[in-house]
Amino acid sequence: MRHKGEPDIIASLASMYKDMVPSGFTGIGDDCAVLPFSGEESLVITTDMLTEDSHFLRNKISPFQLGYKSLAVNLSDVCSMGASPVCTFLSVALDRDAANGWIDDFNEGYYKLSSRYNVPLLGGDTTCSPRGITINVTAIGKVNNKHLKLRSSALPGDKIVVCDTLGDSAAGLKIIRSGKENLSAPYRILTDKHLMPAPCIEKGIWLGTRTEVHAMMDISDGIAKDLRQILACSNTGARIYTHHLPLSPELQQVCQIENWNPTELALCGGEDYSLLFTVAEAKYETLQKTYYQKFQEPLSVIGEITVPGKGIEWYDEQGKQNRDYMGFTHFSSL
Amino acid sequence: MRHKGEPDIIASLASMYKDMVPSGFTGIGDDCAVLPFSGEESLVITTDMLTEDSHFLRNKISPFQLGYKSLAVNLSDVCSMGASPVCTFLSVALDRDAANGWIDDFNEGYYKLSSRYNVPLLGGDTTCSPRGITINVTAIGKVNNKHLKLRSSALPGDKIVVCDTLGDSAAGLKIIRSGKENLSAPYRILTDKHLMPAPCIEKGIWLGTRTEVHAMMDISDGIAKDLRQILACSNTGARIYTHHLPLSPELQQVCQIENWNPTELALCGGEDYSLLFTVAEAKYETLQKTYYQKFQEPLSVIGEITVPGKGIEWYDEQGKQNRDYMGFTHFSSL
Repeated sequence: MRHKGEPDIIASLASMYKDMVPSGFTGIGDDCAVLPFSGEESLVITTDMLTEDSHFLRNKISPFQLGYKSLAVNLSDVCSMGASPVCTFLSVALDRDAANGWIDDFNEGYYKLSSRYNVPLLGGDTTCSPRGITINVTAIGKVNNKHLKLRSSALPGDKIVVCDTLGDSAAGLKIIRSGKENLSAPYRILTDKHLMPAPCIEKGIWLGTRTEVHAMMDISDGIAKDLRQILACSNTGARIYTHHLPLSPELQQVCQIENWNPTELALCGGEDYSLLFTVAEAKYETLQKTYYQKFQEPLSVIGEITVPGKGIEWYDEQGKQNRDYMGFTHFSSL
Repeated sequence: MRHKGEPDIIASLASMYKDMVPSGFTGIGDDCAVLPFSGEESLVITTDMLTEDSHFLRNKISPFQLGYKSLAVNLSDVCSMGASPVCTFLSVALDRDAANGWIDDFNEGYYKLSSRYNVPLLGGDTTCSPRGITINVTAIGKVNNKHLKLRSSALPGDKIVVCDTLGDSAAGLKIIRSGKENLSAPYRILTDKHLMPAPCIEKGIWLGTRTEVHAMMDISDGIAKDLRQILACSNTGARIYTHHLPLSPELQQVCQIENWNPTELALCGGEDYSLLFTVAEAKYETLQKTYYQKFQEPLSVIGEITVPGKGIEWYDEQGKQNRDYMGFTHFSSL
């Protein structure tokens, strides 16, 4: 279960169903549920609901982009467990305005990403609603049990690592909301990252095969919020070096022009859909070299896992900071 | 994929993904998708979206009833394939009015049916929305491949059989919409059947084990519409005897008082969530005796499967009728 819902409701459901979950199954509490499949393999299953005016604004994202993104965020959950996507299910409620051309373009965007990774849509529900557009995707993946990565496996001393850059999608959202999406190249690059995020499919599957990678999850609500999930599930603390956050040149450029704080966007912004994981310290050098050879991209160490009870301690060049950062919540008040 | 969506959209998606569906998988077109699980077993997966003012009216169904019903309609799909439910996933979008007590009662209703059949909720998404309540359930079941029942297995000469009575839920909806739900016992019984339908879990699983049962599906949109799915998938026609439809005493009583047509409610009304299946003629007598011993309820033969190209021919006591019946579509214009 993605932890973007009301924490009280999720905790209450987890407690209600705790005794019903069969042995070997993982229920509420990770990116995906885990079901034993055969002796060696498990299925991972995730589901996400996107509602109009809460997760997206119809006049700010094209139906093609929204179809692509609806699938991307679910494939991201699957691959953050180290699993390969197998199939998806799509439910869409449409109002009259969206019944014709809109849904065709939406389906084209969904298909574009489906076909790129050869993940078939196997079913769903298309229905009408007088209350605008709602989308629900369920994605299923398969993983060798030895390659399954949970949020609960971080160990004190592990390095905290991220793929790609952070904060681009959050900056893209800020740009869109201020109507500057067509200004120039860096603005367009950031809005594209928000509208059509690239899920780390191959990277997640590959990191799954590495035993030195301990805990892993995707970054959907900003690491200030997401990292706390790993800490809670693993019963550990963390130290984060905010001056080591990987920031794209576009983010730095736009933040300078707009006088935005790139560190806050990188830590507290949502929807990066890159990967956050922890790595045994002694094996990190080899891992990052092999990763670079394979993906031609660097990894970034942003901190370390510490002992329980510390929460997140934030450091910058000047040393320990006397403040905290919180993560992203979808714009429910719009 | 449940066929209550726009037929054109479903046909277009089925065609887009046709070549991507791996061998041994069943995609869009039955109550559930089918995924090979082990050599002998398959998983069946279904998903359904319920939207406010289209599938339910907030002031006409209690949150407890809606939670129960949201799960019931999905378990009904699973069991109509002959499968046993394994687990479910629940996404709910809530507005501010539903954020507190409403969702707790909804979750209690969902839990009530989950615990009755020991089907754990393993994940989902709880999110807020300014546009009212939307619910999406994904249900997963498991079935021995020999017991899997598809819509495509009806054979000419098969008897067409239903469990339970037909039309009660549709009458219940009519009663609710006319504000008469508290009038007297038969009215309350019919509205209860609409608000908290009992899915045929044990019956579906048991019928799955019987080789003389050929095609099977659940009745969600009225048999006038649902039976056409079996005919299209099996490339057959059908003859239906409208005077053999099983009607409850409550339905007959209320229809007499209100001057409603019980045959039309039984054929065209939706949401019965009983089972519609076809049986090899020579083995029907034994099947219905064994069924009665097991469930203390009769089965009802309502017609026969005929050769292709005939569509549905409707008969009553006077012989062949010169008319057609259509099924149920959710009340989208409310």
